[in-house]
Amino acid sequence: MEAAEGVSAATPTEEMNGAGNLMDFLDEPFPDVSTYEDFHTIDWLREKSRDTDRHRKITSKSKESLWELIKSLLDAWSGWVVMLLIGLLSGTLAGVIDLAVDWMTDLKEGVCLSAFWYSHEQCCWTSNETTFDDRDKCPQWQKWAELMTGHAEGAGAYVLNYFLYILWALLFSFLAVSLVRVFAPYACGSGIPEIKTILSGFIIRGYLGKWTLLIKTVTLVLAVSSGLSLGKEGPLVHVACCCGNLFCSLFSKYSKNEGKRREVLSAAAAAGVSVAFGAPIGGVLFSLEEVSYYFPLKTLWRSFFAALVAAFTLRSINPFGNSRLVLFYVEYHTPWYMAELVPFILLGVFGGLWGTLFIRANIAWCRRRKTTQLGKYPVLEVIAVTGITALLAYPNPYTRRSTSELISELFNDCGALESSQLCDYVNNPNMSRPVDDIPDRPAGPGVYNALWQLTLALIFKIVITIFTFGMKIPSGLFIPSMAVGAIAGRIVGIAVEQMAYHHHDWIIFKNWCRPGADCVTPGLYAMVGAAACLGGVTRMTVSLVVIMFELTGGLEYIVPLMAAAVTSKWVADAFGKEGIYESHILLNGYPYLDVRDEFTHRTLATDVMRPRRNDPPLAVLTQDSTTVEDVETLIKDTDYNGFPVVVSRESERLIGFVQRRDLTLAIKNARQKQDGVVSSSVVYFTEDAPQLPASNPQPLKLRRILNLSPFTVTDHTPMETVVDIFRKLGLRQCLVTRSGRLLGIITKKDVLRHMAQMMNQDPESIMFN
Amino acid sequence: MEAAEGVSAATPTEEMNGAGNLMDFLDEPFPDVSTYEDFHTIDWLREKSRDTDRHRKITSKSKESLWELIKSLLDAWSGWVVMLLIGLLSGTLAGVIDLAVDWMTDLKEGVCLSAFWYSHEQCCWTSNETTFDDRDKCPQWQKWAELMTGHAEGAGAYVLNYFLYILWALLFSFLAVSLVRVFAPYACGSGIPEIKTILSGFIIRGYLGKWTLLIKTVTLVLAVSSGLSLGKEGPLVHVACCCGNLFCSLFSKYSKNEGKRREVLSAAAAAGVSVAFGAPIGGVLFSLEEVSYYFPLKTLWRSFFAALVAAFTLRSINPFGNSRLVLFYVEYHTPWYMAELVPFILLGVFGGLWGTLFIRANIAWCRRRKTTQLGKYPVLEVIAVTGITALLAYPNPYTRRSTSELISELFNDCGALESSQLCDYVNNPNMSRPVDDIPDRPAGPGVYNALWQLTLALIFKIVITIFTFGMKIPSGLFIPSMAVGAIAGRIVGIAVEQMAYHHHDWIIFKNWCRPGADCVTPGLYAMVGAAACLGGVTRMTVSLVVIMFELTGGLEYIVPLMAAAVTSKWVADAFGKEGIYESHILLNGYPYLDVRDEFTHRTLATDVMRPRRNDPPLAVLTQDSTTVEDVETLIKDTDYNGFPVVVSRESERLIGFVQRRDLTLAIKNARQKQDGVVSSSVVYFTEDAPQLPASNPQPLKLRRILNLSPFTVTDHTPMETVVDIFRKLGLRQCLVTRSGRLLGIITKKDVLRHMAQMMNQDPESIMFN
Repeated sequence: MEAAEGVSAATPTEEMNGAGNLMDFLDEPFPDVSTYEDFHTIDWLREKSRDTDRHRKITSKSKESLWELIKSLLDAWSGWVVMLLIGLLSGTLAGVIDLAVDWMTDLKEGVCLSAFWYSHEQCCWTSNETTFDDRDKCPQWQKWAELMTGHAEGAGAYVLNYFLYILWALLFSFLAVSLVRVFAPYACGSGIPEIKTILSGFIIRGYLGKWTLLIKTVTLVLAVSSGLSLGKEGPLVHVACCCGNLFCSLFSKYSKNEGKRREVLSAAAAAGVSVAFGAPIGGVLFSLEEVSYYFPLKTLWRSFFAALVAAFTLRSINPFGNSRLVLFYVEYHTPWYMAELVPFILLGVFGGLWGTLFIRANIAWCRRRKTTQLGKYPVLEVIAVTGITALLAYPNPYTRRSTSELISELFNDCGALESSQLCDYVNNPNMSRPVDDIPDRPAGPGVYNALWQLTLALIFKIVITIFTFGMKIPSGLFIPSMAVGAIAGRIVGIAVEQMAYHHHDWIIFKNWCRPGADCVTPGLYAMVGAAACLGGVTRMTVSLVVIMFELTGGLEYIVPLMAAAVTSKWVADAFGKEGIYESHILLNGYPYLDVRDEFTHRTLATDVMRPRRNDPPLAVLTQDSTTVEDVETLIKDTDYNGFPVVVSRESERLIGFVQRRDLTLAIKNARQKQDGVVSSSVVYFTEDAPQLPASNPQPLKLRRILNLSPFTVTDHTPMETVVDIFRKLGLRQCLVTRSGRLLGIITKKDVLRHMAQMMNQDPESIMFN
Repeated sequence: MEAAEGVSAATPTEEMNGAGNLMDFLDEPFPDVSTYEDFHTIDWLREKSRDTDRHRKITSKSKESLWELIKSLLDAWSGWVVMLLIGLLSGTLAGVIDLAVDWMTDLKEGVCLSAFWYSHEQCCWTSNETTFDDRDKCPQWQKWAELMTGHAEGAGAYVLNYFLYILWALLFSFLAVSLVRVFAPYACGSGIPEIKTILSGFIIRGYLGKWTLLIKTVTLVLAVSSGLSLGKEGPLVHVACCCGNLFCSLFSKYSKNEGKRREVLSAAAAAGVSVAFGAPIGGVLFSLEEVSYYFPLKTLWRSFFAALVAAFTLRSINPFGNSRLVLFYVEYHTPWYMAELVPFILLGVFGGLWGTLFIRANIAWCRRRKTTQLGKYPVLEVIAVTGITALLAYPNPYTRRSTSELISELFNDCGALESSQLCDYVNNPNMSRPVDDIPDRPAGPGVYNALWQLTLALIFKIVITIFTFGMKIPSGLFIPSMAVGAIAGRIVGIAVEQMAYHHHDWIIFKNWCRPGADCVTPGLYAMVGAAACLGGVTRMTVSLVVIMFELTGGLEYIVPLMAAAVTSKWVADAFGKEGIYESHILLNGYPYLDVRDEFTHRTLATDVMRPRRNDPPLAVLTQDSTTVEDVETLIKDTDYNGFPVVVSRESERLIGFVQRRDLTLAIKNARQKQDGVVSSSVVYFTEDAPQLPASNPQPLKLRRILNLSPFTVTDHTPMETVVDIFRKLGLRQCLVTRSGRLLGIITKKDVLRHMAQMMNQDPESIMFN
């Protein structure tokens, strides 16, 4: 359906220079041939070289005429135009998604009579009731039971509302999973593992296509509205990347070059996070730290632009109705104290443990899904999980509402006007203080009640999230992770607050918490807990702290956040280095070469290269003695992506490298168009035709497709250097030589296989065998 | 004086593996030999490989005993310890510098009678006067004339104060330049060009030594206090890097590995900017964007930690007395309007033009200083410039005060309590409004007066900064650049404001600026102008915007800042791609391979490699037929850093590469310790000794020092790929082969020379000759 619109490269028509005169050949028309096949790895060096060439051509042409000059200026500006478009579209989509989710989440509970497309909040916005509590119950908004039976209260109404809540949830999730199944299978999941893989130079055709964009946007709304324990942040990154890919197709500069395309996608990922959290700087750092592979400074600047445009577009749409850019705007009135670092660090430990537990359990469940019957009934699975979620979520007010509302409430400081159950402190009527300065007070029954409900919600969220992430619907895990952390944090925060209130005389509280003072902010604990849990799951560091900092808008709380994030990362890393995204990449077996993994084993290139000791010799071509038939046999018998060309089988000195695809096309072409080329024709890669007996058929010159600068290392090169070279230069393969003689080849997959092997084995045992 | 403490590497004692068995050899004791010589380039791949080896050794040892395990844990934590120490020390130094500068700047005008070590502000802090204006004139603070003659007013007092102002300025700057000259010549300038070069892998011994740290700190205070048009930001980066280098020497992990050391220095640079502006995130991005060369994600996280610690240390010292982290805290009351983008973009153009003018004029002047007699009298030059600066600066209130105070006043919005001349608007007595909502009003005489003084100050700053930057004292240009922009911006801001007030009916003002509304904030224009000018000079992008955003604390003004920064960069780039730092690097001829330069020429490796067509053949060693004498002659006759080793002169197949230094040492050592090694002994690099007649002297095996994995490219490799490889892998040299035969060598300097050549010539003319 979308083979032509995914991450693909169209026929390259540019003239190619030194990098092997690879492209000269392709000037001859081969329509519908893309440079890379699906599920193959791109060659970054070659893409870069092709782009330089294109650029050089435009620059030299621009001197010829005014029109060419304008064209070259347009070309230079196209990067900024693409960024602008990505920012506008992803900001708009995020706004639409937010509005739709708001409406549909409320639809599960009731409907607005004045205008059915209003959410609960919008419906009651113009209402005359003064307090927040009353406004929530404005007459225009009616729960389903009230509308149907006329009774708003009572057991019957409760059961009817409960039933309809579950029904709506099931309907939404059924629609979501069906749409994904039928129209765009790639629209499921968070998308970040796949985007990381794509950005590292892998081709997954259709993953960022138009259909995926459309379906993911629609199903994301449905999935979030269904009340499942999932968030929209990861999928928004995917949606933004789809936008990026879409706009790439407007400019041949990007659509025809897989390397340049990935620069755009990196920026799009930044825009995605930017709109997800209203955090443009955090988005750019997220893209840099977590998602991107090749991130030149130019991309940094453009990503920043795209992220800003997206954030401001979203703000113009103003989905939260508060003209705030950020999702969870909070303002605390008191600073934090040194002694509080202890609970913050404990929250960090909790976050790390949660991260470990979640990753292990989720991966185990996903593996089971892949390998057992379970995977065959994705619709049923989604329906079942939704049913259980809705059934368990409704009775608890903290799980019934949307997760982002929950987080928002947990983050909030208790002001004087707050009507939340969490703020039900016993008031001291003798004190009259300004609104902003609420002293610590004993907890009222509402708070104790809330504590129990929060504990239940915590257990529920922990368990259900493990089963939710990875189902065949769009699902992000930022929000559920943050919710787990925020609940735990708020519980700890209230505990510390009450301890400080009841034990002013304890030595740790004595210095900073006098009676009647406002010294503990439970909301801050919730925020720190959220950061810790998110850090434990994703292993983000700088971007995590910056996102949380942008969410709150104050540098004051960076130290608590940082303490929790560092602890959480260390604790989680102690149990396993991979974050959830890397774990899913490993699970799916994508060829992803992590920039962060340190390869520290003592193996050499010769230990990794193929052919191995007992393998048949390397499939090579000779520069002037292979026949067309030999080549065709070689192509038929092997499935290698390319073949080294050597002087002769005796000397084995390396001349160059030829791509399988180019070879196939060249021979096919020559057979069709070139007279005299038969099976026994000699193929030669030298400048001049070899001296052949006159009786021989006409030889076929293929120097045009020969890459004369293949990448080589010697057999004694340590693998850590080889890994470094593969990573930094983005190679597909590398030839191994000794004293100029070709010994073997190392491909990216060989490197990955070797790294996986080394990780599971004791390094000492490998080293000497 | 500090040869042993600078950026240097101690004798490596670690065992070395595959990367050529280079280090086995060095296990034999050669004290006082550092791996790299002064003004040489490091080999990043080799440093990395050495570190991996060290790490591997520690890891395997850690299983042996508890003590080794503790040692390995300490080693793993040493990075964080170093970051903590850097943060603490650079924060403290920045605080001390701020306090000292405050005091000494005020000392030029008067003295505090209650305690002479108080600055003007501290002196009058406890005073009872209520308004800011009166408090400024508190009785404890006396101007010099008042103290000496008893008269505070009158022409005589003015002249005496004027005279003493100049005298103090001359004294301070004389002290500064003398200290630099005598104790630490490297302490002059901003230091950022050199730090960029060092971070890219160059050795400048002593540049980051203890003496430089001490002298730069002291002279920075003197230079800033003298009232010269310079800032402390660049030098603070240098100071922080000196701290980083200092703490590196505590841990052999960093002191013995030039690659690891540079990771620490990158983080230290971030800490420097963090304390300079109170902008930790901006500092990290500055280090990433502007200063660093190799910036792995691990460093990003650690830099952030160091930057935060530094910022919080500075805040604990609280030098500005306002418990604000940032230098120029501002709060504006009104949003900006779309139409204002026009003046913002004009300010961007101004910033770009200023950047171009400043860079060209400053570089021309610095070149003149280098090539003419001028350079021989640095003390005299500093004295002269200080004299002229003080003479011209005193009469104008905007140049008399310190530049950061000036910027702070220009950024400020005019509140109701503001007593500044810039806020002398005509008050409308009929209006009583809240403090925060000051409507636009007609300018009073004070504002018109201020406009004239600001215009004069602008011209003065523009001219004098060109001559100041590059003198033999510590001098940063962030603050002067920002001052130029802030003055220009404020002037434009006032103009727009008055235009809006007097012409409400103009179509552009009609929509957003009704009479009595508060619609234009001249302070915001100053901020935008400052960003534009700083951007024009340094070509920073993201870090610039983030620093300015952290200075103000609101996302609201990112769009104006971004518009100005983008415009300024484009305008400045149109006149020349290099920022001031790159220009100074070029001027000084440092071997710096810019990550951002795109190499787009069509040359091949064969065009760049040496030997060139008419040169003598490449100096090579053969694997088993060179004698000790031949080697010694080769070492004596050439000054290459190393020699390729080939199978034989006939076949020229490459075996490996041997460093000159290792060769010299090995032969010296063998001659001393190994019996039978004479001039005619054959040197061999193979595993087994060559078959030699029995009469021959004992051969010398040197395989230990042979690097068996030299980096090679083919002669057909495009130079853009070669440049990419040099950049990304941080190579020192690369060998050029064709079909396994050694043809030549390309060093980093060859690459740089070639790039410089290509930039000055038409690419088309080079390509085909």
